[in-house]
Amino acid sequence: MADRGLFITFEGTDGGGKTTQIQRLTADLREAGYDICLTREPGGTPISEQIRDMLLNPDHSEMAATTELLLYAASRAQHVSEVIKPALEAGKVVISSRFADATVVYQGYGRGLDLERIDRLNRIATDGVTPEVTFVLDLPVEIGLQRVQNSRGGLDRLEREKIEFHHRLREGYQIIARQEPQRLKIIDAQVSPDQVYAQIQAIIQSLLDK
Amino acid sequence: MADRGLFITFEGTDGGGKTTQIQRLTADLREAGYDICLTREPGGTPISEQIRDMLLNPDHSEMAATTELLLYAASRAQHVSEVIKPALEAGKVVISSRFADATVVYQGYGRGLDLERIDRLNRIATDGVTPEVTFVLDLPVEIGLQRVQNSRGGLDRLEREKIEFHHRLREGYQIIARQEPQRLKIIDAQVSPDQVYAQIQAIIQSLLDK
Repeated sequence: MADRGLFITFEGTDGGGKTTQIQRLTADLREAGYDICLTREPGGTPISEQIRDMLLNPDHSEMAATTELLLYAASRAQHVSEVIKPALEAGKVVISSRFADATVVYQGYGRGLDLERIDRLNRIATDGVTPEVTFVLDLPVEIGLQRVQNSRGGLDRLEREKIEFHHRLREGYQIIARQEPQRLKIIDAQVSPDQVYAQIQAIIQSLLDK
Repeated sequence: MADRGLFITFEGTDGGGKTTQIQRLTADLREAGYDICLTREPGGTPISEQIRDMLLNPDHSEMAATTELLLYAASRAQHVSEVIKPALEAGKVVISSRFADATVVYQGYGRGLDLERIDRLNRIATDGVTPEVTFVLDLPVEIGLQRVQNSRGGLDRLEREKIEFHHRLREGYQIIARQEPQRLKIIDAQVSPDQVYAQIQAIIQSLLDK
Protein backbone atom coordinates (compact mmCIF):
# COMPACT_ATOMS: atom_id res chain seq x y z
CA MET A 1 0.00 0.00 0.00
CA ALA A 2 2.87 2.37 0.73
CA ASP A 3 3.77 2.21 -2.95
CA ARG A 4 0.48 3.43 -4.29
CA GLY A 5 -1.40 5.12 -1.48
CA LEU A 6 -5.00 4.63 -0.43
CA PHE A 7 -7.89 6.82 -1.55
CA ILE A 8 -10.89 7.16 0.80
CA THR A 9 -13.91 9.42 0.21
CA PHE A 10 -16.81 10.45 2.42
CA GLU A 11 -20.22 11.21 0.96
CA GLY A 12 -23.80 11.73 2.06
CA THR A 13 -26.18 14.62 2.57
CA ASP A 14 -25.45 17.30 5.16
CA GLY A 15 -26.03 16.45 8.80
CA GLY A 16 -24.56 12.94 8.57
CA GLY A 17 -21.44 13.90 10.53
CA LYS A 18 -18.80 13.66 7.77
CA THR A 19 -16.50 16.24 9.41
CA THR A 20 -16.46 14.49 12.78
CA GLN A 21 -15.76 11.07 11.29
CA ILE A 22 -13.05 12.39 8.96
CA GLN A 23 -11.27 14.11 11.85
CA ARG A 24 -11.33 10.97 13.92
CA LEU A 25 -10.13 8.70 11.11
CA THR A 26 -7.35 11.16 10.22
CA ALA A 27 -6.14 11.34 13.83
CA ASP A 28 -6.11 7.55 14.20
CA LEU A 29 -4.31 6.90 10.94
CA ARG A 30 -1.72 9.60 11.72
CA GLU A 31 -1.17 8.02 15.09
CA ALA A 32 -0.64 4.68 13.34
CA GLY A 33 2.10 6.33 11.25
CA TYR A 34 0.30 6.93 7.98
CA ASP A 35 0.98 10.04 5.94
CA ILE A 36 -2.45 11.66 5.40
CA CYS A 37 -3.57 14.09 2.71
CA LEU A 38 -6.86 15.64 3.81
CA THR A 39 -8.88 17.42 1.14
CA ARG A 40 -12.42 18.28 0.03
CA GLU A 41 -14.68 19.13 -2.88
CA PRO A 42 -15.78 21.44 -4.30
CA GLY A 43 -12.38 23.08 -3.97
CA GLY A 44 -9.12 21.54 -2.90
CA THR A 45 -6.80 23.82 -4.94
CA PRO A 46 -6.67 27.61 -5.56
CA ILE A 47 -7.89 27.14 -9.16
CA SER A 48 -10.68 24.83 -7.99
CA GLU A 49 -11.70 27.36 -5.32
CA GLN A 50 -11.87 30.07 -7.97
CA ILE A 51 -14.10 27.85 -10.13
CA ARG A 52 -16.23 27.16 -7.06
CA ASP A 53 -16.70 30.91 -6.47
CA MET A 54 -17.89 31.22 -10.06
CA LEU A 55 -20.38 28.37 -9.57
CA LEU A 56 -21.76 29.90 -6.38
CA ASN A 57 -21.90 33.51 -7.64
CA PRO A 58 -25.57 34.58 -7.38
CA ASP A 59 -25.07 36.97 -10.34
CA HIS A 60 -24.64 33.93 -12.58
CA SER A 61 -28.31 32.93 -12.72
CA GLU A 62 -28.01 32.62 -16.51
CA MET A 63 -25.48 29.79 -16.19
CA ALA A 64 -26.45 26.83 -18.42
CA ALA A 65 -26.67 23.33 -16.91
CA THR A 66 -23.92 22.06 -19.25
CA THR A 67 -21.64 24.96 -18.30
CA GLU A 68 -22.17 24.09 -14.65
CA LEU A 69 -21.28 20.40 -15.20
CA LEU A 70 -18.18 21.35 -17.17
CA LEU A 71 -17.06 23.75 -14.43
CA TYR A 72 -17.51 21.08 -11.75
CA ALA A 73 -15.49 18.73 -13.95
CA ALA A 74 -12.75 21.35 -14.46
CA SER A 75 -12.51 21.92 -10.72
CA ARG A 76 -12.28 18.16 -10.12
CA ALA A 77 -9.68 17.65 -12.87
CA GLN A 78 -7.44 20.24 -11.20
CA HIS A 79 -8.00 18.69 -7.77
CA VAL A 80 -7.06 15.23 -9.08
CA SER A 81 -4.03 16.41 -11.01
CA GLU A 82 -2.60 18.82 -8.45
CA VAL A 83 -3.48 17.15 -5.13
CA ILE A 84 -4.92 13.62 -5.21
CA LYS A 85 -2.75 11.93 -7.84
CA PRO A 86 0.61 13.23 -6.54
CA ALA A 87 -0.34 12.27 -2.96
CA LEU A 88 -1.34 8.74 -4.01
CA GLU A 89 1.85 8.38 -6.04
CA ALA A 90 3.80 9.44 -2.94
CA GLY A 91 2.11 6.57 -1.05
CA LYS A 92 -0.14 8.75 1.12
CA VAL A 93 -3.62 8.04 2.42
CA VAL A 94 -5.89 10.59 0.71
CA ILE A 95 -9.16 11.37 2.49
CA SER A 96 -11.58 13.60 0.57
CA SER A 97 -14.85 14.99 1.82
CA ARG A 98 -16.99 14.43 -1.29
CA PHE A 99 -15.72 13.46 -4.75
CA ALA A 100 -17.15 12.31 -8.11
CA ASP A 101 -20.19 10.57 -6.58
CA ALA A 102 -21.43 13.92 -5.26
CA THR A 103 -21.92 15.24 -8.82
CA VAL A 104 -23.78 12.08 -9.85
CA VAL A 105 -26.05 12.42 -6.83
CA TYR A 106 -26.60 16.19 -6.47
CA GLN A 107 -26.61 17.22 -10.16
CA GLY A 108 -27.83 13.90 -11.58
CA TYR A 109 -30.33 12.30 -9.19
CA GLY A 110 -31.10 15.52 -7.28
CA ARG A 111 -31.46 18.06 -10.10
CA GLY A 112 -32.19 15.71 -12.98
CA LEU A 113 -29.19 16.55 -15.20
CA ASP A 114 -28.18 13.91 -17.72
CA LEU A 115 -26.52 11.00 -15.86
CA GLU A 116 -24.68 9.71 -18.91
CA ARG A 117 -23.12 13.14 -19.51
CA ILE A 118 -22.12 13.42 -15.84
CA ASP A 119 -20.53 10.00 -16.07
CA ARG A 120 -18.53 10.89 -19.19
CA LEU A 121 -17.30 14.12 -17.60
CA ASN A 122 -16.38 12.35 -14.37
CA ARG A 123 -14.27 9.88 -16.33
CA ILE A 124 -12.42 12.74 -18.03
CA ALA A 125 -12.00 14.72 -14.80
CA THR A 126 -10.84 11.87 -12.55
CA ASP A 127 -8.48 10.42 -15.15
CA GLY A 128 -9.10 6.93 -13.77
CA VAL A 129 -8.55 7.85 -10.11
CA THR A 130 -11.25 5.99 -8.12
CA PRO A 131 -11.59 5.70 -4.34
CA GLU A 132 -10.82 2.30 -2.85
CA VAL A 133 -13.66 2.90 -0.43
CA THR A 134 -16.42 5.50 -0.18
CA PHE A 135 -18.34 5.92 3.06
CA VAL A 136 -21.88 7.22 2.61
CA LEU A 137 -23.12 8.52 5.95
CA ASP A 138 -26.79 7.73 5.61
CA LEU A 139 -29.67 9.30 7.53
CA PRO A 140 -33.43 9.46 7.13
CA VAL A 141 -34.05 12.75 5.30
CA GLU A 142 -36.06 14.42 8.07
CA ILE A 143 -33.40 13.73 10.67
CA GLY A 144 -30.63 15.08 8.44
CA LEU A 145 -32.54 18.28 7.75
CA GLN A 146 -33.37 18.68 11.42
CA ARG A 147 -29.73 18.30 12.35
CA VAL A 148 -28.65 21.12 10.03
CA GLN A 149 -31.49 23.54 10.70
CA ASN A 150 -33.19 24.71 13.84
CA SER A 151 -36.24 22.65 14.55
CA ARG A 152 -39.28 24.91 14.01
CA GLY A 153 -42.40 22.77 14.14
CA GLY A 154 -44.15 22.91 10.70
CA LEU A 155 -42.48 22.96 7.28
CA ASP A 156 -43.00 25.67 4.65
CA ARG A 157 -43.12 25.05 0.88
CA LEU A 158 -39.39 25.48 0.37
CA GLU A 159 -38.61 23.09 3.17
CA ARG A 160 -40.99 20.54 1.70
CA GLU A 161 -39.21 20.87 -1.66
CA LYS A 162 -35.96 20.42 0.17
CA ILE A 163 -37.30 17.17 1.59
CA GLU A 164 -38.22 15.91 -1.89
CA PHE A 165 -34.76 16.85 -3.12
CA HIS A 166 -33.04 15.11 -0.21
CA HIS A 167 -35.08 11.97 -0.80
CA ARG A 168 -33.71 11.88 -4.35
CA LEU A 169 -30.15 12.37 -3.04
CA ARG A 170 -30.48 9.56 -0.54
CA GLU A 171 -31.94 7.25 -3.18
CA GLY A 172 -29.14 8.28 -5.57
CA TYR A 173 -26.44 7.15 -3.16
CA GLN A 174 -28.31 3.89 -2.70
CA ILE A 175 -28.45 3.30 -6.45
CA ILE A 176 -24.68 3.77 -6.76
CA ALA A 177 -24.16 1.44 -3.77
CA ARG A 178 -26.14 -1.26 -5.55
CA GLN A 179 -24.00 -0.75 -8.68
CA GLU A 180 -20.67 -0.73 -6.81
CA PRO A 181 -21.17 -2.63 -3.55
CA GLN A 182 -17.43 -3.27 -3.16
CA ARG A 183 -16.59 0.44 -3.12
CA LEU A 184 -19.63 2.20 -1.64
CA LYS A 185 -20.37 1.45 1.99
CA ILE A 186 -23.65 2.82 3.29
CA ILE A 187 -23.09 3.60 6.97
CA ASP A 188 -26.07 4.10 9.26
CA ALA A 189 -25.45 7.57 10.71
CA GLN A 190 -28.47 7.52 13.03
CA VAL A 191 -26.51 5.77 15.76
CA SER A 192 -23.97 7.52 18.02
CA PRO A 193 -20.73 8.95 16.51
CA ASP A 194 -18.81 6.21 18.33
CA GLN A 195 -20.92 3.51 16.72
CA VAL A 196 -20.58 5.16 13.29
CA TYR A 197 -16.85 5.29 13.72
CA ALA A 198 -16.66 1.63 14.74
CA GLN A 199 -18.23 0.65 11.40
CA ILE A 200 -15.77 2.84 9.46
CA GLN A 201 -12.80 1.59 11.47
CA ALA A 202 -13.64 -2.06 10.80
CA ILE A 203 -13.74 -1.50 7.05
CA ILE A 204 -10.53 0.56 7.00
CA GLN A 205 -8.78 -2.06 9.13
CA SER A 206 -9.65 -4.83 6.71
CA LEU A 207 -8.36 -2.66 3.83
CA LEU A 208 -5.07 -1.92 5.63
CA ASP A 209 -4.61 -5.61 6.51
CA LYS A 210 -4.57 -6.53 2.82
CA MET B 1 -33.42 29.94 -43.73
CA ALA B 2 -35.31 32.59 -41.76
CA ASP B 3 -36.78 29.80 -39.66
CA ARG B 4 -33.54 28.38 -38.43
CA GLY B 5 -30.81 30.96 -38.95
CA LEU B 6 -27.40 30.51 -40.49
CA PHE B 7 -24.20 29.86 -38.52
CA ILE B 8 -20.91 31.06 -40.03
CA THR B 9 -17.50 30.86 -38.34
CA PHE B 10 -14.10 32.32 -39.19
CA GLU B 11 -10.92 30.51 -38.28
CA GLY B 12 -7.21 30.62 -39.03
CA THR B 13 -4.04 31.79 -37.33
CA ASP B 14 -3.53 35.46 -36.49
CA GLY B 15 -2.66 37.82 -39.32
CA GLY B 16 -5.10 36.30 -41.80
CA GLY B 17 -7.43 39.29 -41.65
CA LYS B 18 -10.45 37.71 -39.90
CA THR B 19 -11.61 41.01 -38.38
CA THR B 20 -11.62 42.87 -41.70
CA GLN B 21 -13.50 40.14 -43.52
CA ILE B 22 -16.04 39.70 -40.73
CA GLN B 23 -16.75 43.45 -40.68
CA ARG B 24 -17.27 43.51 -44.39
CA LEU B 25 -19.53 40.43 -44.47
CA THR B 26 -21.57 41.77 -41.55
CA ALA B 27 -22.08 45.15 -43.25
CA ASP B 28 -23.13 43.54 -46.53
CA LEU B 29 -25.55 41.09 -44.94
CA ARG B 30 -27.09 43.85 -42.78
CA GLU B 31 -27.52 45.97 -45.90
CA ALA B 32 -29.29 43.01 -47.55
CA GLY B 33 -31.71 42.94 -44.61
CA TYR B 34 -30.37 40.06 -42.54
CA ASP B 35 -30.43 40.18 -38.77
CA ILE B 36 -26.84 39.55 -37.68
CA CYS B 37 -25.51 38.27 -34.37
CA LEU B 38 -21.77 38.99 -34.24
CA THR B 39 -19.77 37.13 -31.59
CA ARG B 40 -16.39 35.62 -30.81
CA GLU B 41 -14.46 33.04 -28.84
CA PRO B 42 -12.97 32.75 -26.34
CA GLY B 43 -15.66 34.84 -24.67
CA GLY B 44 -19.02 35.89 -26.02
CA THR B 45 -20.88 36.06 -22.66
CA PRO B 46 -19.99 37.52 -19.21
CA ILE B 47 -19.55 34.00 -17.76
CA SER B 48 -17.41 32.96 -20.73
CA GLU B 49 -15.29 36.11 -20.34
CA GLN B 50 -14.74 35.30 -16.67
CA ILE B 51 -13.63 31.77 -17.60
CA ARG B 52 -11.34 33.28 -20.23
CA ASP B 53 -9.72 35.54 -17.59
CA MET B 54 -9.06 32.44 -15.51
CA LEU B 55 -7.48 30.66 -18.48
CA LEU B 56 -5.23 33.63 -19.26
CA ASN B 57 -4.23 34.38 -15.64
CA PRO B 58 -0.42 34.07 -15.50
CA ASP B 59 -0.66 33.02 -11.81
CA HIS B 60 -2.30 29.80 -12.95
CA SER B 61 0.85 28.11 -14.26
CA GLU B 62 -0.12 24.96 -12.32
CA MET B 63 -3.28 24.53 -14.41
CA ALA B 64 -3.57 20.95 -15.69
CA ALA B 65 -4.16 20.31 -19.41
CA THR B 66 -7.48 18.58 -18.70
CA THR B 67 -8.65 21.49 -16.52
CA GLU B 68 -7.82 23.84 -19.37
CA LEU B 69 -9.82 21.78 -21.89
CA LEU B 70 -12.79 21.57 -19.53
CA LEU B 71 -12.72 25.34 -18.95
CA TYR B 72 -12.65 26.03 -22.71
CA ALA B 73 -15.58 23.63 -23.05
CA ALA B 74 -17.49 25.35 -20.21
CA SER B 75 -16.95 28.74 -21.82
CA ARG B 76 -18.17 27.39 -25.18
CA ALA B 77 -21.20 25.67 -23.63
CA GLN B 78 -22.30 28.99 -22.12
CA HIS B 79 -21.67 30.81 -25.41
CA VAL B 80 -23.78 28.27 -27.33
CA SER B 81 -26.61 28.19 -24.82
CA GLU B 82 -26.84 31.91 -24.08
CA VAL B 83 -25.96 33.49 -27.45
CA ILE B 84 -25.64 31.23 -30.48
CA LYS B 85 -28.61 28.87 -30.05
CA PRO B 86 -31.18 31.57 -29.20
CA ALA B 87 -29.98 33.70 -32.14
CA LEU B 88 -30.24 30.78 -34.59
CA GLU B 89 -33.68 29.88 -33.24
CA ALA B 90 -34.71 33.51 -33.83
CA GLY B 91 -33.65 33.08 -37.48
CA LYS B 92 -30.54 35.30 -37.27
CA VAL B 93 -27.25 34.95 -39.11
CA VAL B 94 -24.65 34.21 -36.44
CA ILE B 95 -21.04 35.08 -37.30
CA SER B 96 -18.43 33.94 -34.79
CA SER B 97 -14.73 34.69 -34.87
CA ARG B 98 -13.38 31.27 -33.88
CA PHE B 99 -15.42 28.34 -32.54
CA ALA B 100 -14.95 24.62 -31.81
CA ASP B 101 -12.34 24.07 -34.55
CA ALA B 102 -9.98 26.48 -32.76
CA THR B 103 -9.71 24.12 -29.77
CA VAL B 104 -9.04 21.14 -32.04
CA VAL B 105 -6.31 23.10 -33.82
CA TYR B 106 -4.65 25.13 -31.04
CA GLN B 107 -4.91 22.66 -28.13
CA GLY B 108 -4.96 19.47 -30.21
CA TYR B 109 -2.68 19.87 -33.24
CA GLY B 110 -0.72 22.82 -31.82
CA ARG B 111 -0.09 21.71 -28.24
CA GLY B 112 -0.54 17.97 -28.64
CA LEU B 113 -3.48 17.48 -26.24
CA ASP B 114 -5.61 14.40 -26.81
CA LEU B 115 -7.72 14.92 -29.95
CA GLU B 116 -10.32 12.35 -29.00
CA ARG B 117 -10.89 14.05 -25.63
CA ILE B 118 -11.18 17.45 -27.33
CA ASP B 119 -13.70 15.99 -29.72
CA ARG B 120 -15.83 14.51 -26.93
CA LEU B 121 -15.79 17.81 -25.01
CA ASN B 122 -16.66 19.79 -28.13
CA ARG B 123 -19.68 17.57 -28.68
CA ILE B 124 -20.86 18.18 -25.12
CA ALA B 125 -20.17 21.93 -25.27
CA THR B 126 -21.73 22.64 -28.68
CA ASP B 127 -24.80 20.49 -28.02
CA GLY B 128 -25.01 19.66 -31.74
CA VAL B 129 -24.67 23.25 -32.97
CA THR B 130 -22.35 23.12 -36.01
CA PRO B 131 -21.49 25.95 -38.43
CA GLU B 132 -22.97 25.65 -41.91
CA VAL B 133 -19.74 27.10 -43.24
CA THR B 134 -16.33 27.81 -41.69
CA PHE B 135 -13.87 30.08 -43.47
CA VAL B 136 -10.24 29.34 -42.70
CA LEU B 137 -8.15 32.34 -43.72
CA ASP B 138 -4.97 30.58 -44.75
CA LEU B 139 -1.50 32.10 -44.98
CA PRO B 140 2.05 30.77 -45.21
CA VAL B 141 3.28 30.77 -41.59
CA GLU B 142 6.11 33.26 -42.08
CA ILE B 143 3.82 35.80 -43.72
CA GLY B 144 1.24 35.48 -40.95
CA LEU B 145 3.84 35.99 -38.24
CA GLN B 146 5.34 38.93 -40.10
CA ARG B 147 1.95 40.55 -40.37
CA VAL B 148 1.35 40.40 -36.62
CA GLN B 149 4.81 41.35 -35.42
CA ASN B 150 7.29 44.01 -36.45
CA SER B 151 9.70 42.60 -38.95
CA ARG B 152 13.09 42.47 -37.18
CA GLY B 153 15.50 40.58 -39.45
CA GLY B 154 16.63 37.38 -37.66
CA LEU B 155 14.51 35.07 -35.53
CA ASP B 156 15.31 34.12 -31.92
CA ARG B 157 14.61 30.71 -30.37
CA LEU B 158 11.12 31.59 -29.19
CA GLU B 159 10.20 32.90 -32.60
CA ARG B 160 11.49 29.74 -34.22
CA GLU B 161 9.34 27.68 -31.83
CA LYS B 162 6.46 29.92 -32.77
CA ILE B 163 7.03 29.03 -36.41
CA GLU B 164 6.97 25.31 -35.63
CA PHE B 165 3.78 25.80 -33.64
CA HIS B 166 2.14 27.78 -36.42
CA HIS B 167 3.04 25.12 -38.97
CA ARG B 168 1.15 22.60 -36.82
CA LEU B 169 -1.85 24.95 -36.62
CA ARG B 170 -1.96 25.45 -40.36
CA GLU B 171 -1.66 21.72 -40.97
CA GLY B 172 -4.39 21.11 -38.36
CA TYR B 173 -6.89 23.28 -40.22
CA GLN B 174 -5.99 21.47 -43.42
CA ILE B 175 -6.63 18.08 -41.82
CA ILE B 176 -10.11 19.17 -40.66
CA ALA B 177 -10.79 20.58 -44.15
CA ARG B 178 -10.00 17.18 -45.66
CA GLN B 179 -12.36 15.53 -43.14
CA GLU B 180 -15.19 18.04 -43.67
CA PRO B 181 -14.74 19.58 -47.12
CA GLN B 182 -18.39 20.65 -47.28
CA ARG B 183 -18.11 22.81 -44.17
CA LEU B 184 -14.50 24.01 -44.04
CA LYS B 185 -13.43 26.35 -46.81
CA ILE B 186 -9.73 27.15 -46.93
CA ILE B 187 -9.44 30.68 -48.27
CA ASP B 188 -6.12 31.92 -49.62
CA ALA B 189 -5.45 35.03 -47.51
CA GLN B 190 -2.26 36.02 -49.32
CA VAL B 191 -4.16 37.92 -51.98
CA SER B 192 -5.69 41.38 -51.45
CA PRO B 193 -8.57 41.83 -48.94
CA ASP B 194 -10.90 42.48 -51.91
CA GLN B 195 -9.93 39.19 -53.50
CA VAL B 196 -10.32 37.34 -50.19
CA TYR B 197 -13.76 38.86 -49.75
CA ALA B 198 -14.82 37.89 -53.26
CA GLN B 199 -14.17 34.23 -52.42
CA ILE B 200 -16.17 34.48 -49.18
CA GLN B 201 -19.00 36.35 -50.86
CA ALA B 202 -19.38 33.72 -53.59
CA ILE B 203 -19.72 30.92 -51.03
CA ILE B 204 -22.16 32.88 -48.85
CA GLN B 205 -24.23 33.79 -51.89
CA SER B 206 -24.59 30.16 -52.91
CA LEU B 207 -25.65 29.30 -49.34
CA LEU B 208 -28.24 32.09 -49.24
CA ASP B 209 -29.60 31.11 -52.66
CA LYS B 210 -30.50 27.66 -51.34
